[in-house]
Amino acid sequence: MITLSAFRWVPPLAQGLVRDVRVRWALEEAGIPYQERLIGPEDQSTAAYRALQPFGQVPAIETENLKLFESGAIVIHIAEKSDALMPSDRNGRARTSAWIFAALNSVEPQIQNLAELDLFHAREAWAPMRRPMALEAAQKRLAAVENWLGNRVTTVLRIPRHTDIVSGRPVLKAYLERCESRPAFQKAMADHLRPFEATAA
Amino acid sequence: MITLSAFRWVPPLAQGLVRDVRVRWALEEAGIPYQERLIGPEDQSTAAYRALQPFGQVPAIETENLKLFESGAIVIHIAEKSDALMPSDRNGRARTSAWIFAALNSVEPQIQNLAELDLFHAREAWAPMRRPMALEAAQKRLAAVENWLGNRVTTVLRIPRHTDIVSGRPVLKAYLERCESRPAFQKAMADHLRPFEATAA
Repeated sequence: MITLSAFRWVPPLAQGLVRDVRVRWALEEAGIPYQERLIGPEDQSTAAYRALQPFGQVPAIETENLKLFESGAIVIHIAEKSDALMPSDRNGRARTSAWIFAALNSVEPQIQNLAELDLFHAREAWAPMRRPMALEAAQKRLAAVENWLGNRVTTVLRIPRHTDIVSGRPVLKAYLERCESRPAFQKAMADHLRPFEATAA
Repeated sequence: MITLSAFRWVPPLAQGLVRDVRVRWALEEAGIPYQERLIGPEDQSTAAYRALQPFGQVPAIETENLKLFESGAIVIHIAEKSDALMPSDRNGRARTSAWIFAALNSVEPQIQNLAELDLFHAREAWAPMRRPMALEAAQKRLAAVENWLGNRVTTVLRIPRHTDIVSGRPVLKAYLERCESRPAFQKAMADHLRPFEATAA
């Protein structure tokens, strides 16, 4: 049985965006059952947890014979067990992995910069000066994804939900809605949000 | 034969840091020959090049039956062909891939933000206000890598060479020096720099 680390609670602005969603969704699509290990800030710096996740973040997974961190690596590992998620030939796996890296290394950093600026630093004096450049960098990468027909970067595209930089692009908007309407995504999202409600209550 | 896309020339502050170095190094360690396809700004936005690399960046590789982009995906693809680079069992591959994703998704964004601030925006009014936070974010991730003994993130660690945030950490400094002293790394770096010299001449 896979045990997935997730946060017991995060502030509302991050709910729905934490990276365990990626793993939950992949597991649902693959039809692989799992259990949760919910952690809080008191766990993030412990030596025990850092042995599982060196940065004190989520997600991480544990099985009988494997400890694994990084959402990208976990998703690829799950995808290797499921023909629904990834082709099994070497070149097919390589092309799938290219789009996972594209989402996490070529698109997410720019989107994350914009989101952090708007969500965490909006009231700081430097933020309005920095924002046009951050917006331009995010737009540039999103335009490239849209040109390619963007169909492999859903959870990253959900991050700038406080802006119209994705919803203003018809191809990306339709793609995101198609992904979010999948039963496996909805199940994953509900399971992601449930602990937050329980903790808040 | 693998054909690797790389830039014909980049400004001195980027020389040695472009992501094709990662692929060149992996190919050298694996003992796999390759040829270069050198591109310039005039190629980056063409439909033909975007079909190979959707963001107009480097690296990308082409073989008889595969086009592949994203340095992380290419490095994993090469590593699958070489026992020197990655174990062949599924769990061993997953752990290797975790550190590649850690380098590119958990460490590089913070380091890249700091480097862009210092190298491209230093004279802008907002930069000095933003810098302490960017520095702290990079330091936090580097401390975690150092605690883990950091042995899988070399090319990312080379980016902040204009600061002491890596060279001031003895474990990371020694690790970086050990990597950079490998013959395969030195061959890769020489091949990376050669076109720049030829173009500048």
